[in-house]
Amino acid sequence: MRAAVFCGPRCIEVADRPDPVVVAPTDAVVRVVFGCVCGSDLWYYRGESPHAPGPIGHEFIGVVEQVGGDVRSIARDDFVVAPFKFSDGTCPHCRAGWTSNCVSGAPFGTDGIDGGQGEAVRVPFADGTLVKVPGSGHSDETMRSLLTLSDVMATGHHAAVSGSVRPGNVVAVIGDGAVGLCAVIAARRLNATRIIALSRHAARQALARTFGATDIIAERGDAAIQAILQMTDGVGVDAALECVGTAQSFATAFAIARPGSMVGFVGVPHGVEVPIDTMFGRNIGLRGGAAPVRRYLPELLDDVLEGRIDPGRVFDFETNLDGVAEAYRAMDERRAIKSLLRMGTV
Amino acid sequence: MRAAVFCGPRCIEVADRPDPVVVAPTDAVVRVVFGCVCGSDLWYYRGESPHAPGPIGHEFIGVVEQVGGDVRSIARDDFVVAPFKFSDGTCPHCRAGWTSNCVSGAPFGTDGIDGGQGEAVRVPFADGTLVKVPGSGHSDETMRSLLTLSDVMATGHHAAVSGSVRPGNVVAVIGDGAVGLCAVIAARRLNATRIIALSRHAARQALARTFGATDIIAERGDAAIQAILQMTDGVGVDAALECVGTAQSFATAFAIARPGSMVGFVGVPHGVEVPIDTMFGRNIGLRGGAAPVRRYLPELLDDVLEGRIDPGRVFDFETNLDGVAEAYRAMDERRAIKSLLRMGTV
Repeated sequence: MRAAVFCGPRCIEVADRPDPVVVAPTDAVVRVVFGCVCGSDLWYYRGESPHAPGPIGHEFIGVVEQVGGDVRSIARDDFVVAPFKFSDGTCPHCRAGWTSNCVSGAPFGTDGIDGGQGEAVRVPFADGTLVKVPGSGHSDETMRSLLTLSDVMATGHHAAVSGSVRPGNVVAVIGDGAVGLCAVIAARRLNATRIIALSRHAARQALARTFGATDIIAERGDAAIQAILQMTDGVGVDAALECVGTAQSFATAFAIARPGSMVGFVGVPHGVEVPIDTMFGRNIGLRGGAAPVRRYLPELLDDVLEGRIDPGRVFDFETNLDGVAEAYRAMDERRAIKSLLRMGTV
Repeated sequence: MRAAVFCGPRCIEVADRPDPVVVAPTDAVVRVVFGCVCGSDLWYYRGESPHAPGPIGHEFIGVVEQVGGDVRSIARDDFVVAPFKFSDGTCPHCRAGWTSNCVSGAPFGTDGIDGGQGEAVRVPFADGTLVKVPGSGHSDETMRSLLTLSDVMATGHHAAVSGSVRPGNVVAVIGDGAVGLCAVIAARRLNATRIIALSRHAARQALARTFGATDIIAERGDAAIQAILQMTDGVGVDAALECVGTAQSFATAFAIARPGSMVGFVGVPHGVEVPIDTMFGRNIGLRGGAAPVRRYLPELLDDVLEGRIDPGRVFDFETNLDGVAEAYRAMDERRAIKSLLRMGTV
């Protein structure tokens, strides 16, 4: 099969790789229909995080081609969504719902594990990982939204859940990448009444509004903080959703969070120092991490299939496997919010 | 009146101070019946935190002597519990339940505000601050427990609430001071089924067991971490309650917290660096601060009056105002868990 591989900073190539096969009886092999590029892929693309040379990409939807003898809930020809990490479904963390912290789990597209930016993937622990999509003949629009459940929509939801968003809340979303935009959807879905999106890009502002943002703040840093405090009569927001991972975005989150509120964070932290004295002094909590996608998938899947949310609109660039390097470049240069890789059909 | 004053590190004296009077129409003047010394008083006592010379002590129960013309819920001769900070009860933070973050609030015994280690206190915003204790003729044992509601019991409860303790949980309490011991009570009260107390002092271990601890860990640091991980089959605890405030106690909390759990913290942080990568990697949340005592008081008051909890047992040293310096010394030297100051009668 052919698959995208990382060959060093700003070097993405398409290479021949062995066709995946069932190795363990709990495995499945999935033929990828849609894959995509994640904002977090840019960290290693830009040389800011280490990544071993080899297969990449951790988001995909596809069709099951083979299953091992112990796989029970997934069968050949099923159309499935894969969370960005596989999980055994049986360890104490999985049983508690923290599938992204599975003791046997790992992200796709790391350390030689097949990636979602390739034609096929061996999926360990298929029962504990994959979720079957009911029905058939889904529209292209629905398919694009299903793909976001692999990571960004589930991650935006995790930001909102970690930030304890409740009905009637005033919520600020820091970050206008695909995850931040999905966090707007998630906040709306959890019935926040005022959703403040921080963005200075017209296209992203428009999409944030479409997704449910009631206010847009184009300023950054101190100016953004002052604007949000002014909008909230000096009180601050009920939940600040940090969807970037930088020192500045964390600082903004803590500055606008009202006493007693939570900062939900899903941006992989880079160079962040947590202001523990501020947290203590203002009773602001901090919670987040890698989204337990497998746990969230059923409810989000329902919402996509019934048309209540359409996170697939975050994809504004599209290519196929041969265009994968350009897919990265488009996101790196912020020409694209998120790049879709069309690999096949159902 | 006479009151304890801070005159510099390890210098506590009793001085004559003006008798408090009603200044604002929302004030009350309370004659102190019981006061006490807090573990957090030791920070300035030891010269580790700044504190202006002047009145000290933020925990007291007493009898109302005067009220201003606008006070509605409190009357002369009422027997009351005072939270360690006063709060107006009307600002957005108070209305949201975060009375310890009141925009008009401050702790008693700081910056020239009357302290609880004195014969009387002017209490600003009496309606938003004081809680009347129903009934009369309370036993000395009950009185001692009522005093803990001013701070330590409410703070232990805040640790448990911040740590999201739920029925059936395995909870670890780090710190065997009065707050840690009260956190054991709080965890028990919230129906945790296994409560691991970290303590290497026999008397505190015994009290922790009385309060509901099911397991005692006498080790510290890495040895304590290994012991707790072993006890939990490598999984870790559902909630880690940090009741000290040092780098080591935070490190222990994060090391034993299972993925998806919360660290509740109420020890004033000193030299703490938050391990943000651990938080992200293991989805561990952090939440805490100064307890919103006024919000918690009604439910805790009920439990004390109906004999369901007896946090007053944390007082194992007793003196009067003249003995206040010795009350500090006894805690500083860890001869006492917590020192009671008997100032008068109801």
